[in-house]
Amino acid sequence: MIFSSLKLNKDEPIYIQVENHIKESIEKGMLQKGSKLPSTREVSSFLNISRNSVVVAYENLEIDGIIKSSRGKGTFVTIEASKPKNEFNIDWGTRINSYGSICESMDILKTELPWEKNMISFKSIAPEENLFDIEEFKRAFLDVISLEGNKILNYGYAKGYKPLLEYLMDYMKSKGINTEGKDILVTNGFTEGFDIIINTLTEPGDVIICENPTHNTAIKIMKAHGLDIIGVPMNEDGIDTKSLEKALENTSPKFAYIIPSYHNPTGIVMNGEKRQEVLNIFQKHSIPVIEDGFNEELLYTSSPVPSLASFCTDGNGVVYVGSLSKILFPGLRLGWMFGDRDLINTLESVKRARTIHSSFIDQGIFYHYMKSGAFDKYVKKVRKHYKDKYEFTLKQVNKHIPYESITGEGGLHIFIKLKGINAREVLQKCYEKGVVFTPGDIFYTDGGGEDTFRIGFSRVSEEDIEKGIKVIGEVINSIKNL
Amino acid sequence: MIFSSLKLNKDEPIYIQVENHIKESIEKGMLQKGSKLPSTREVSSFLNISRNSVVVAYENLEIDGIIKSSRGKGTFVTIEASKPKNEFNIDWGTRINSYGSICESMDILKTELPWEKNMISFKSIAPEENLFDIEEFKRAFLDVISLEGNKILNYGYAKGYKPLLEYLMDYMKSKGINTEGKDILVTNGFTEGFDIIINTLTEPGDVIICENPTHNTAIKIMKAHGLDIIGVPMNEDGIDTKSLEKALENTSPKFAYIIPSYHNPTGIVMNGEKRQEVLNIFQKHSIPVIEDGFNEELLYTSSPVPSLASFCTDGNGVVYVGSLSKILFPGLRLGWMFGDRDLINTLESVKRARTIHSSFIDQGIFYHYMKSGAFDKYVKKVRKHYKDKYEFTLKQVNKHIPYESITGEGGLHIFIKLKGINAREVLQKCYEKGVVFTPGDIFYTDGGGEDTFRIGFSRVSEEDIEKGIKVIGEVINSIKNL
Repeated sequence: MIFSSLKLNKDEPIYIQVENHIKESIEKGMLQKGSKLPSTREVSSFLNISRNSVVVAYENLEIDGIIKSSRGKGTFVTIEASKPKNEFNIDWGTRINSYGSICESMDILKTELPWEKNMISFKSIAPEENLFDIEEFKRAFLDVISLEGNKILNYGYAKGYKPLLEYLMDYMKSKGINTEGKDILVTNGFTEGFDIIINTLTEPGDVIICENPTHNTAIKIMKAHGLDIIGVPMNEDGIDTKSLEKALENTSPKFAYIIPSYHNPTGIVMNGEKRQEVLNIFQKHSIPVIEDGFNEELLYTSSPVPSLASFCTDGNGVVYVGSLSKILFPGLRLGWMFGDRDLINTLESVKRARTIHSSFIDQGIFYHYMKSGAFDKYVKKVRKHYKDKYEFTLKQVNKHIPYESITGEGGLHIFIKLKGINAREVLQKCYEKGVVFTPGDIFYTDGGGEDTFRIGFSRVSEEDIEKGIKVIGEVINSIKNL
Repeated sequence: MIFSSLKLNKDEPIYIQVENHIKESIEKGMLQKGSKLPSTREVSSFLNISRNSVVVAYENLEIDGIIKSSRGKGTFVTIEASKPKNEFNIDWGTRINSYGSICESMDILKTELPWEKNMISFKSIAPEENLFDIEEFKRAFLDVISLEGNKILNYGYAKGYKPLLEYLMDYMKSKGINTEGKDILVTNGFTEGFDIIINTLTEPGDVIICENPTHNTAIKIMKAHGLDIIGVPMNEDGIDTKSLEKALENTSPKFAYIIPSYHNPTGIVMNGEKRQEVLNIFQKHSIPVIEDGFNEELLYTSSPVPSLASFCTDGNGVVYVGSLSKILFPGLRLGWMFGDRDLINTLESVKRARTIHSSFIDQGIFYHYMKSGAFDKYVKKVRKHYKDKYEFTLKQVNKHIPYESITGEGGLHIFIKLKGINAREVLQKCYEKGVVFTPGDIFYTDGGGEDTFRIGFSRVSEEDIEKGIKVIGEVINSIKNL
């Protein structure tokens, strides 16, 4: 009520005080152009004054062109509030801490060459959205609304939507993982899950061990948190176990971060024997493992390769971070963390302190979509689709690009190493010809990889794959022949 | 391919090597019960051996009961993979850092008395979900799907869904705020917005100034980040400006955190004059202000009280954190930050490093819901609804509770101070009688407020409000008369 702050005095006529109060309120910005004034009846009752005083005040203000009454609608302020000019400036740039600066300087969307219209872009490893079955998505939406009603739109629980949690637990079990003593926390994708773990388990200066190269977002998060990254070189079958053993002799990392399937960026799938070996090494040194379940669902061999978590038949040494974002509905930003029940219990509180919980309507849709069998059907379809695209891309690369080595066993991308040619030089020239890809150096923990790059083919048509790879090959050959 | 790791030797018969490889793969957990084996044709072609060797190997394994062929379906493993028992244990409890421990120890869902079925609970200040117009929500969902198609389900942008960003910018402008040089970032509610700001602008040990009492989630986030909180006492019209001036003489806070409307927990609405005064004080000391726009939309006076941000007519000293979570669809977890363009640009990168972006389908639904006019209609409806409930609650409190003072001018809650009676003692006794509320001490930055409590009435029926308040009054009287 705009008159709450009016203290009436006995020296001036009441109507003048009411008039002045409204003028001052406008001047102070408390009443704005278009604001509706309370009715004369309301004001007289609120201030306990005669209604006539208010009527007179309003009439005078209307004559002055300050307010205007409109029959049946009310009385409105007609002049612009001329708030005192108030220039309150803060030099925000000097106030950003190192975390903020690193997040910004390592934000590849701001630092890398942008994709432009009509370009052929091999940058993305997001799924091809045309494969999404939107009718099934709509059905899942209507199912959850009809089942849960309005309450799905109110606050939920930090851990996640209960039917989804149960579904995911069964899903982990179906991967041959022992779920006893374990729990699940739904997160906003892998990124939030990994960031929550880092926030909860590390201090600046702590050491983390991972593959080199590795997922650039993980590198960004670790660097932003001031962590010391030890990247262990990879062979064609995954992390080099001898180098790993050696690295562990000299350091005590807080944990290991490993991507066993369709490793980003190399595309390598670690075989089961190697997974067991790698897990044994970490276990021997008591280094917990954060397993990135990235694209595991795309594995299209006849027998699934068990996750690292499944080799940990008893015990809680592995935390599995799952996400379907590279396959299904990444726009929903849903993922999950699976691990030791007490640890998840703490992470749940951390999640609550960061985002309260992930969108419950999205979790509901996701659950109904998965449960209905639409997901199984969809996975079968996209495995075939991406496998064909992978084989087509590989053929084009073999035909056009003079590489030193190539890795990637399927999934959504392949990784190419050139013979002593700088991939950023290639990229710059390709960019001028309308073709872009991801330079490999952003995936390296030690500034290496300048002769590598990643080709993401998931969203590129076969026609464009052929054209684009040809351009890349021509550029490389032109540099070689200089 | 399960045979990738098989290196054939020349000493043993091929079929024996194939047999042993499958047995070993099962033993090592690389083939699980139910796994499908590749066809004999695939194996012979992959290993470049005669198909007959594979057929013999498969037959022998079937005789041993290890695999089973099913005509037209394929060959499957029938025995349980007996993975080596592997007990890999980590003592996670000792690995949680102080951030994680504080998030957990200040998680009121874990530390406070739980709500139980059939209890009357005044704990929540979430909106009454039965007021949500679910048909409009469905319509908004179908609108966004039909307009955007599958691409709304793929990755989006960290800053937010563009039409929503534009809508929110106009919305800020309609509040009389100068939007020049400003930008908006969509967040997962107030909580993420505030946490992102803290993450980006502070270091442990930094000082933040705020009202005392204040929003308990904000206190939790600040403490978890190791910040030093200076809580300034409040009067019945908001923060005490003399105490504020004094506090600023002795400290240089990184920023101020202020809740001008329906302050949580006191329910006080700062009037416009006071807002101008408070802003002037911070400006004089060059202390930027984080304004929590909490429940501003519920202000049901005839003339809106302008936000702190609107008094900053020029300059970038105020960051406004908006959220509709206490009014509309909190389960979606959507909010926004409005402030200096360069600052938002950095915060956008931080957001990308934390959750990539907020759910795009949710942002799309939200935008279509707001734009259609459904929001305006809804706000009018709930203002009336909550105003009536507020007045009813107030009447019951005045009738039954012997308080020292009471604050709260509407909104979704009121705040009560008793005369030297411990609110936790009252709570314990009320709990035994099936009534719960929020003890006030959790909102205090300095351990005070032991004689205060918050009554959230938004989700309680009038019948239960009457019953519940009566119980609280009786308990207080019984303690007084001891």
